[in-house]
Amino acid sequence: MAFMEISIVPIGTGGTSLSGYVAETLKILKISGLEFELHDMGTTVTGEPADLFRVANEMHNATFSMGVMRIYTVIKIDDRRDKTVSSLGHKTHSALEKIKN
Amino acid sequence: MAFMEISIVPIGTGGTSLSGYVAETLKILKISGLEFELHDMGTTVTGEPADLFRVANEMHNATFSMGVMRIYTVIKIDDRRDKTVSSLGHKTHSALEKIKN
Amino acid sequence: MAFMEISIVPIGTGGTSLSGYVAETLKILKISGLEFELHDMGTTVTGEPADLFRVANEMHNATFSMGVMRIYTVIKIDDRRDKTVSSLGHKTHSALEKIKN
Amino acid sequence: MAFMEISIVPIGTGGTSLSGYVAETLKILKISGLEFELHDMGTTVTGEPADLFRVANEMHNATFSMGVMRIYTVIKIDDRRDKTVSSLGHKTHSALEKIKN
Repeated sequence: MAFMEISIVPIGTGGTSLSGYVAETLKILKISGLEFELHDMGTTVTGEPADLFRVANEMHNATFSMGVMRIYTVIKIDDRRDKTVSSLGHKTHSALEKIKN
Repeated sequence: MAFMEISIVPIGTGGTSLSGYVAETLKILKISGLEFELHDMGTTVTGEPADLFRVANEMHNATFSMGVMRIYTVIKIDDRRDKTVSSLGHKTHSALEKIKN
Repeated sequence: MAFMEISIVPIGTGGTSLSGYVAETLKILKISGLEFELHDMGTTVTGEPADLFRVANEMHNATFSMGVMRIYTVIKIDDRRDKTVSSLGHKTHSALEKIKN
Repeated sequence: MAFMEISIVPIGTGGTSLSGYVAETLKILKISGLEFELHDMGTTVTGEPADLFRVANEMHNATFSMGVMRIYTVIKIDDRRDKTVSSLGHKTHSALEKIKN
């Protein structure tokens, strides 16, 4: 299992609000069955790398279907294969423990 | 107020765990007084752009102080000046409302 | 045609040199037939979005085949559908013209 | 010396062309005296980390001065302190040598 963070930025939309575009990509994620979490700077998704790349492509295309003519998509993938870190939230636990006091 | 997400990736560390390095950068953020939140793919910080760039530089340098010889830092800044979106979590509300049912 | 930039950062390699890993991913690109260019901060590739996501997945996997246990991959895609900007280098021309003197 | 790549994406501009905005940021770089290179997916700049963070802040602000109300800035910094890699183009040489035949 890997973690992907994706941010899809439509260009030339005439307005500064992006929540409608973000909502459209979340619908794709809901259908995909992958675990995901929206946060202030993007959406984090967990799954097998091939599934993550596939759903990223679908989310990117879904934004064009809303009439946007140019899109800037930023993706970060953190893929660790020596250890199973399968659920959202588990990765942060260890760092947060270290700064507790 | 703008939002910054920062991920600092040390290279050539000999181990795959990064939580010790992340903890070190969170100490910088605690001292800075800026609002921040660690999530699975990075740390999100809010503040004035000049403060965000300054603290990013400090976090980047703090990781070198742990004996790392090469660092790859990824930063995304979302800066909106037509509307006050000042707190972590407020940005996601509108998109999540749209996919409720 | 869209532009993708991809940077694949292996974690825990014990050494700070990445050129061997980069070379492995360039072999994938050569086989793909897609136009690409290596620069100091990543590799830029042009092609249909579906092809770009597919080759990104292959490059990401190829790096694991070299014995790396954790990989951090950063991808940016600039996809413009109102105008054909199909070749590497064309996009920069207009901005550079504007600062000529 | 470190390498920074910066991409500044204005949101809600009403048009899909970004070259005018890019040109404005290149003027900042020219004044800074730092070595830089525009490529299809961003601008790469070399310099001391503190200088890179400072000029990134200036380029980000310069784009707002053109009437944009929301900006999405993506920065990647590759900072290697065990070896002097000071000029644009030097980093790619070794990887390209490895795939020559």
